[in-house]
Amino acid sequence: MNNAGTLYLIPTPIGDIAAEQTIPLQTLEIVRKLDYFIVENIRTARRFISKAGVLKTIDELEFVVHDKHYDPHDIGLMLKPLLKGKDGGLLSEAGTPCVADPGGVVVAQAHEWGIKVVPLSGPNAIILALMASGFNGQAFRFYGYLPIQENDCVQSIKSLEQQAFSTGETQIFIETPFRNNTLIERIIKHGHPDTFLCVAAGISTPDEKIISMPIGQWRTMAFDFHKIPAVMLIWSANKNVFQNKRKKYKR
Amino acid sequence: MNNAGTLYLIPTPIGDIAAEQTIPLQTLEIVRKLDYFIVENIRTARRFISKAGVLKTIDELEFVVHDKHYDPHDIGLMLKPLLKGKDGGLLSEAGTPCVADPGGVVVAQAHEWGIKVVPLSGPNAIILALMASGFNGQAFRFYGYLPIQENDCVQSIKSLEQQAFSTGETQIFIETPFRNNTLIERIIKHGHPDTFLCVAAGISTPDEKIISMPIGQWRTMAFDFHKIPAVMLIWSANKNVFQNKRKKYKR
Repeated sequence: MNNAGTLYLIPTPIGDIAAEQTIPLQTLEIVRKLDYFIVENIRTARRFISKAGVLKTIDELEFVVHDKHYDPHDIGLMLKPLLKGKDGGLLSEAGTPCVADPGGVVVAQAHEWGIKVVPLSGPNAIILALMASGFNGQAFRFYGYLPIQENDCVQSIKSLEQQAFSTGETQIFIETPFRNNTLIERIIKHGHPDTFLCVAAGISTPDEKIISMPIGQWRTMAFDFHKIPAVMLIWSANKNVFQNKRKKYKR
Repeated sequence: MNNAGTLYLIPTPIGDIAAEQTIPLQTLEIVRKLDYFIVENIRTARRFISKAGVLKTIDELEFVVHDKHYDPHDIGLMLKPLLKGKDGGLLSEAGTPCVADPGGVVVAQAHEWGIKVVPLSGPNAIILALMASGFNGQAFRFYGYLPIQENDCVQSIKSLEQQAFSTGETQIFIETPFRNNTLIERIIKHGHPDTFLCVAAGISTPDEKIISMPIGQWRTMAFDFHKIPAVMLIWSANKNVFQNKRKKYKR
């Protein structure tokens, strides 16, 4: 439809793990062919690219930064080379670009300009946590961050719990790692003992630790997730939600 | 904490693509070590396992079936070998087990029995579609299937659109492939011209086709997604949703 290049969306490893371990060959082979990258952080992007087996020298590669502090006017500039026919890769610091990470506005602009967008497979902490939770994976909701301030946060927890209870959906959220323990303590204190809580920490790293059980059980054990990147999920067990989705989720 | 084995959650390729292309090495290496598999479909599981470079003969491998028609009483039986110390792999037909696929109840039971659960990376159509949509990846909701009957379906579409508009969240859903065109036609007919619709079809296969644009534009073009597995996403563009999440999503 035009002569534009392709924008590849490239997942990177989560945590300090060799690129070949969690990034599939197809993704690595495409990275090796590219020389233009839109990245969240140049230093970590360079490290990933050298681990990915790229044989080009750093001088042959071009990096532009797109992070959460982006200026909307820069998006068009970043995509200009693709408009002229160059292929480019979009990378975030760890895991999947555009999902709980920057990149979405770049992709939106690419579609508007008719640049082909190709998403590549790799680790995504949200999906890995959802798989591992044992909670409802037929309907779920990701909220990003909850409010920091205690009253607002507790209110959010209660509203998520209510949502889990009334819809059967798994409710998923994240927190800045140094605030993990505070948030988990609040959930355990204010949640119903029968509500399930899963904390999936250090996902896809050697330190991975996934605990999934009712809040009542969480109350009886010690835990420490301080500074370990974590995904948290709550769910209200309902033996029927895994089946008869069409009936259950009729709105 | 006990002598139980580990339950590995194993993604498989989506579509007819070589296993090494979209399944990372770490996942393949674990598959090669296992000889006990809980699978959605034995035939496709065997095909994947032989493509994954497993050197054991079929006689050395054991398969038990867990699909959407499962009997709850079988879940415990399936996990018995793991309780006794054997490692096992859980596979769905294509993509990620437990997410829009069977497996969740098996994982839930594993947690209850203290069996360690390890989710492995691989392709997930929902996340790949979300990345590629250019829509909000900081907050999103997956609904599974919408109702089939026209009135109920249209009402669902309107409710999803309202949800997208009021929360800024991306609304994600799927359809049985032979009903794709009917559903897309309904969305285009009943949605607001400014609402964005993305159809991500044949994701991670050679026939991948991702179209993301406002409904007003969809109305001007021909499309055909008949029988191609697809993820559909709707979103109400709001230039602010990508930033200031804490403020925006305070509840």
